[in-house]
Amino acid sequence: MKRENQKFEKIYLRETQRIELRLKNLLKGKKPKSLYEPCNYLLIGGGKRLRPFLVIISAKAAGGKFSQAYNAAIGIEVLHNFTLAHDDIMDNSDLRRGRLTLHKKYDVNTAILAGDNLIALAYESLLKDCKNNTHEIVKTFTHGIIEVCEGQSLDKEFELKNNVSLNEYKTMIYKKTAALAEMSCKVGALLANASPKIVNAVSEYGKNLGMAFQIQDDLLDIIAEEEKFGKKIGSDLIEGKKTFLFLSAIKRAKGEDKIHLEKIILNKGIAPNEVPFYQELYKKLGVIDSAKKEIEKYTKLALESLEVLPNEEGKQLMKWLANSLINRNK
Amino acid sequence: MKRENQKFEKIYLRETQRIELRLKNLLKGKKPKSLYEPCNYLLIGGGKRLRPFLVIISAKAAGGKFSQAYNAAIGIEVLHNFTLAHDDIMDNSDLRRGRLTLHKKYDVNTAILAGDNLIALAYESLLKDCKNNTHEIVKTFTHGIIEVCEGQSLDKEFELKNNVSLNEYKTMIYKKTAALAEMSCKVGALLANASPKIVNAVSEYGKNLGMAFQIQDDLLDIIAEEEKFGKKIGSDLIEGKKTFLFLSAIKRAKGEDKIHLEKIILNKGIAPNEVPFYQELYKKLGVIDSAKKEIEKYTKLALESLEVLPNEEGKQLMKWLANSLINRNK
Repeated sequence: MKRENQKFEKIYLRETQRIELRLKNLLKGKKPKSLYEPCNYLLIGGGKRLRPFLVIISAKAAGGKFSQAYNAAIGIEVLHNFTLAHDDIMDNSDLRRGRLTLHKKYDVNTAILAGDNLIALAYESLLKDCKNNTHEIVKTFTHGIIEVCEGQSLDKEFELKNNVSLNEYKTMIYKKTAALAEMSCKVGALLANASPKIVNAVSEYGKNLGMAFQIQDDLLDIIAEEEKFGKKIGSDLIEGKKTFLFLSAIKRAKGEDKIHLEKIILNKGIAPNEVPFYQELYKKLGVIDSAKKEIEKYTKLALESLEVLPNEEGKQLMKWLANSLINRNK
Repeated sequence: MKRENQKFEKIYLRETQRIELRLKNLLKGKKPKSLYEPCNYLLIGGGKRLRPFLVIISAKAAGGKFSQAYNAAIGIEVLHNFTLAHDDIMDNSDLRRGRLTLHKKYDVNTAILAGDNLIALAYESLLKDCKNNTHEIVKTFTHGIIEVCEGQSLDKEFELKNNVSLNEYKTMIYKKTAALAEMSCKVGALLANASPKIVNAVSEYGKNLGMAFQIQDDLLDIIAEEEKFGKKIGSDLIEGKKTFLFLSAIKRAKGEDKIHLEKIILNKGIAPNEVPFYQELYKKLGVIDSAKKEIEKYTKLALESLEVLPNEEGKQLMKWLANSLINRNK
């Protein structure tokens, strides 16, 4: 098993390096510089490149080849980077992956326009791989963008809303995160000309993986080891974010505990030195276990949907990825 | 001839009312409200609806029917509204067509996100009309968006640049305005399954019409009658915009005249009471005549390209539109 995992990790590294190289060259020599330099700054900013990897392994698992889907993979990473550029403006974030956010490096106008252009560049790249069923692929891609915008809108709504339910939260993270993973997988399978049954299976994998990924993000903010995590533990608490853990906690809490949690909403966050207190409270209320269970549930659903897939190596890669993500520490 | 014109005007009014109605209903009942209410605010804001009209008359002139292209027409108007939302943020504009701009009515974040969503909604609407050659239609549409972003980037660049040439200016307005008119016409013809020759002819019409339209916009700012124009005469001078007239003037001017014009750049605009002085200067330098000649040149090119088109009524509509635009006073 360990040797298998090493093999898959090697494929991941090789393929994401290929993607990295393509991203680096995508906008070479394009003008005007005032537009393409900022676009490029975004694209070379690093990251796990999970979404493009999902596209190519989905193409393979659905019976096709990596090489049928590289341009589409790039398109989806470009699209993801558009969301980062505009979200960072909306969230007033200064840093991303240790670098200045685009609107801090340049200015808000530049970041708006670069983001807009990236949407079109994403379609442009996607189209390069569309040989058959272009209509369905473009429709799927477009639907993904609408979901992401709706998700971002809900996310901003929830910042101002005091009584967000767990179900509302799940709808939001589905739209904001899981829908794009689902779309990545679906596009991969459509490029491989797979049957509706296969397309559906691969999409289900992406969706459930995306849900698991986001809840794990919420969980890592509380339980990760700071050196490995790369950011401050408890940031979500400090910023007063309504995460899966927070919403589970406030649903369960009574008396004093509830008052402590409501204080987070009231004060729009907590002081850094209060983080350990709330970590303990989360443990006491059992929401850490409940988040873990939720992540396992979604991961299980993701893995189950893989059974029908025709290509063994692609399928194993998808399994490996799901298991790696559930065991990640950053 | 006059009776013919009345007929075409009637068709324009009937069809733009249809478009208006479709725009009004496009987002009905969509959620979340925090996203779709602002999107809708944009779409019902009025305007000449020239771009969607170009789409349907191009479909007709190329041998198809209006009814093949309504959704695509809506898509292009939706796309145009995205550019308005984001441009208004970048230009820090408070009003558009007598109403608050989106980011003033709501806030910048809302306007960014609504604009983003409109891009995807535009594709969604376009796809509804794509039966054949989806690949080429989506590619054309995507290329149009990239041109618009590049054009907007150049426009912002030029604000800070002192020596913009007339050719650079033409490249900018081609990308920022004419490319979308060209794309609208091309999409219409592609939806009608026209031959490359016809598609090309219709695209040329759109491009040249767009160029004429933008230079006329610059001209009207100087020579229009204020009551009919609907905005203050000389606004471009007051804001220090590098228009076709300004760039022609500074190219021709010598001595004192040149110094007066350079003052506009230096001071980033002029005082409202200086407008008449510069109107006279423009006249003296012959740039009003030269703008009129340029508009005529592009309009002539637009009309010439129509000769090969198969459908007489569509062709006549396109002629009527070009002539109406050249004679407009707002």
